[in-house]
Amino acid sequence: MVKVTVWNEFQHEKSNAEVIAVYPDGIHEAIKAGIGTDGFEVRTATLDEPEHGLTEEVLANTDVLIWWGHMAHDRVEDEIVERVHKRVMNGMGLIVLHSGHFSKIFKKLMGTGCDLKWREANERERIWTVNPAHPIAAGLPEYFNLEREEMYGEHFDIPAPDELVFVSWFEGGEVFRSGCTWHRGQGKVFYFRPGHETFPTYYNPNVLQVIKNGIRWATPSGVVAPVRGNHKPLEEIKAK
Amino acid sequence: MVKVTVWNEFQHEKSNAEVIAVYPDGIHEAIKAGIGTDGFEVRTATLDEPEHGLTEEVLANTDVLIWWGHMAHDRVEDEIVERVHKRVMNGMGLIVLHSGHFSKIFKKLMGTGCDLKWREANERERIWTVNPAHPIAAGLPEYFNLEREEMYGEHFDIPAPDELVFVSWFEGGEVFRSGCTWHRGQGKVFYFRPGHETFPTYYNPNVLQVIKNGIRWATPSGVVAPVRGNHKPLEEIKAK
Amino acid sequence: MVKVTVWNEFQHEKSNAEVIAVYPDGIHEAIKAGIGTDGFEVRTATLDEPEHGLTEEVLANTDVLIWWGHMAHDRVEDEIVERVHKRVMNGMGLIVLHSGHFSKIFKKLMGTGCDLKWREANERERIWTVNPAHPIAAGLPEYFNLEREEMYGEHFDIPAPDELVFVSWFEGGEVFRSGCTWHRGQGKVFYFRPGHETFPTYYNPNVLQVIKNGIRWATPSGVVAPVRGNHKPLEEIKAK
Amino acid sequence: MVKVTVWNEFQHEKSNAEVIAVYPDGIHEAIKAGIGTDGFEVRTATLDEPEHGLTEEVLANTDVLIWWGHMAHDRVEDEIVERVHKRVMNGMGLIVLHSGHFSKIFKKLMGTGCDLKWREANERERIWTVNPAHPIAAGLPEYFNLEREEMYGEHFDIPAPDELVFVSWFEGGEVFRSGCTWHRGQGKVFYFRPGHETFPTYYNPNVLQVIKNGIRWATPSGVVAPVRGNHKPLEEIKAK
Repeated sequence: MVKVTVWNEFQHEKSNAEVIAVYPDGIHEAIKAGIGTDGFEVRTATLDEPEHGLTEEVLANTDVLIWWGHMAHDRVEDEIVERVHKRVMNGMGLIVLHSGHFSKIFKKLMGTGCDLKWREANERERIWTVNPAHPIAAGLPEYFNLEREEMYGEHFDIPAPDELVFVSWFEGGEVFRSGCTWHRGQGKVFYFRPGHETFPTYYNPNVLQVIKNGIRWATPSGVVAPVRGNHKPLEEIKAK
Repeated sequence: MVKVTVWNEFQHEKSNAEVIAVYPDGIHEAIKAGIGTDGFEVRTATLDEPEHGLTEEVLANTDVLIWWGHMAHDRVEDEIVERVHKRVMNGMGLIVLHSGHFSKIFKKLMGTGCDLKWREANERERIWTVNPAHPIAAGLPEYFNLEREEMYGEHFDIPAPDELVFVSWFEGGEVFRSGCTWHRGQGKVFYFRPGHETFPTYYNPNVLQVIKNGIRWATPSGVVAPVRGNHKPLEEIKAK
Repeated sequence: MVKVTVWNEFQHEKSNAEVIAVYPDGIHEAIKAGIGTDGFEVRTATLDEPEHGLTEEVLANTDVLIWWGHMAHDRVEDEIVERVHKRVMNGMGLIVLHSGHFSKIFKKLMGTGCDLKWREANERERIWTVNPAHPIAAGLPEYFNLEREEMYGEHFDIPAPDELVFVSWFEGGEVFRSGCTWHRGQGKVFYFRPGHETFPTYYNPNVLQVIKNGIRWATPSGVVAPVRGNHKPLEEIKAK
Repeated sequence: MVKVTVWNEFQHEKSNAEVIAVYPDGIHEAIKAGIGTDGFEVRTATLDEPEHGLTEEVLANTDVLIWWGHMAHDRVEDEIVERVHKRVMNGMGLIVLHSGHFSKIFKKLMGTGCDLKWREANERERIWTVNPAHPIAAGLPEYFNLEREEMYGEHFDIPAPDELVFVSWFEGGEVFRSGCTWHRGQGKVFYFRPGHETFPTYYNPNVLQVIKNGIRWATPSGVVAPVRGNHKPLEEIKAK
């Protein structure tokens, strides 16, 4: 069983009627229900909980953390960001969704500005697989549509992904690298673009398939932690 | 169950007493025994069998093909090479071992010369993990030694690997990118360096762990095959 | 001065009135005129010349080879393909344009099928820069349009590029990785998508800027050729 | 002329007799003298200067910044780190040397811990080129030795480099990815391993060649800055 924690800032869903209509229990509950329990043991955590629900104990018991945030990035405590970062370095997988591109943890892991173009215009997004050998593309059609989404456009200010899995086409004329993977420390990071709070994206079966594939891909590999610091020679060194 | 076929040219083990002493039943049987049956269903195939043991039916029933060859690369029929190549494009994983770097199938998949430095000198090889997040490094110590191996040295004439997992240190002063992955078509390719025919490398538990990890990594992901060729528009195109 | 050879199969421009109207002297002459002489010394070569114009002497005096082909890929002699391949291994840059994706030399260098989706529909292509630090993007706007082009769509069956510079948006709903780089041996390879024979793409200033940038990027770096084969130890090896 | 600023914390060279004997005017002056003036316009900056010598004006007039630090990483003001980071995002090249792996700016750009194994043992380092097509390898032999250096060993906790140019062999039995490149924003970053303060590494002609090659590679490409933020559609969006 992969232990998954779905983190959501859970703010829009308390205050914005349009969002409440789509996600009455919050985006985190929709994702939790959507990914199901086949191989996954899922809990949720949100901003307003003590320590944002991300205690040392919760993180130690999380294989893969899913992150959705938007309007409250600045309210995430730096100490918790450091804690999540350290846990990724130690092997926890991290899946960052949509507006999470501007979260503190994603920017810290990327080392860049993580900015992009955007537009709210109810337009069509078509997500193309450009890496059909990748496990995150398993079981998906070669493209799928989201009839109404927010646009994100290039240039997306991220490091070149280790692997580029999806590229989005937008009706208004833009493209976006919408499925990207990186290794950081012993951890794996997957960014997936869709999921504006006013659209029912996290009920879409293809989107849920991508997230489930992402969880499996990001699960810790059982690697032995490297030792660093002062190191004795393994071979004889000759005096010079 | 992952269906694995271990292919070996099986020539040295019929003619060279030193090799026979190490691998009396052939390198393929040593690898088959070494990777075991936990999750794997393993068969073998060798050069001297009809169609080198790689019939359409065998390949269609192979998830991951392991390849060891050395002195008889030229005797592998081009038609079989094309068949294996096509199967990799369709999703079969391929693990190329040691002197397989000069096999027709590896050179075809790489597009480069695949040459390297080499030396037979019974020297120590130390294999370091440089990508501890990678599933092929699962369960391994941060380095392990092979007390006597053939040296392979840089520059290894391959495309930059998509992922570099291991780098070897050699007693005589060289380094080598000894664990490399690439995607080709829908298939995954893993090259792993060790395994000279006169040394008991394929009985080493760490080497077998790498091969088992490689099989799991290279297993087809269940991706839907892309459609190519003439394609009707998905959106209206305006006359100009 | 960078020595550039523009190779074109030069077939459509002899037989098809629509193409002749656009490129009366052939695509190669349009490219030659377009890239100019500022830092470049440019010659052309075509399929119907002896040895396709790619003699040992010509290749030895070529820093960067540009390749356009389409209907006559099969008429390129294997011996010449081997010669070009060998020269790339030795450091010559290669820029493959548009339908050159199916040329023998590109397929050999890639190791994959190199197939894609396509459609001739006079539709708009918008080329986005996704790697603004890359020298091939120098001086370009963040996107530029080609009002009428042939569509190429994903999945483009290539190895993941070492660097992805451009992604195309098409009016009909597709995306395409349209500017890709790879290292092969000591040589550099750049694939650039646009350039259907019935459209005036090679007169477009942005397209010409990309090609000029590509030439500069692909110019041999002055690297010392690696030595391969049997290699004496650089350090003492202890008897075991 | 490429405008280069060589930054050095310049601490060891004021207090440690062993270091003063090797670099009486500081590592920065040795590097400045070593890279010369052929195509470069070089200035220096050090920690104890106001704003560490890295004023807005200096950075605005710097194409490539070279960074050496070790014992005083913590004394570099966060504000200056932010300033350098912003300038890299806007296109400035950054070359980080040796113990600069633990500098604030490098860790911020990488997003990882950047730790490694190390040992001071006067041992031999042999630096191998693993990417002979790369311009940073121009003019170098396929390997070169530094007879006495500090050891750095894997696992080096960095993101997988976009391009791996050099791998080091150490006498005591370790390997290290010692020449690595990344793009960050519009800027280029190159990490180069050698250069312990007690050894005359920065007088070595091959080391200086690498640094000069690195400067040329990291020079801004003249890219047009991407626009980000709210973006109007380029194509008509149909009401749904």
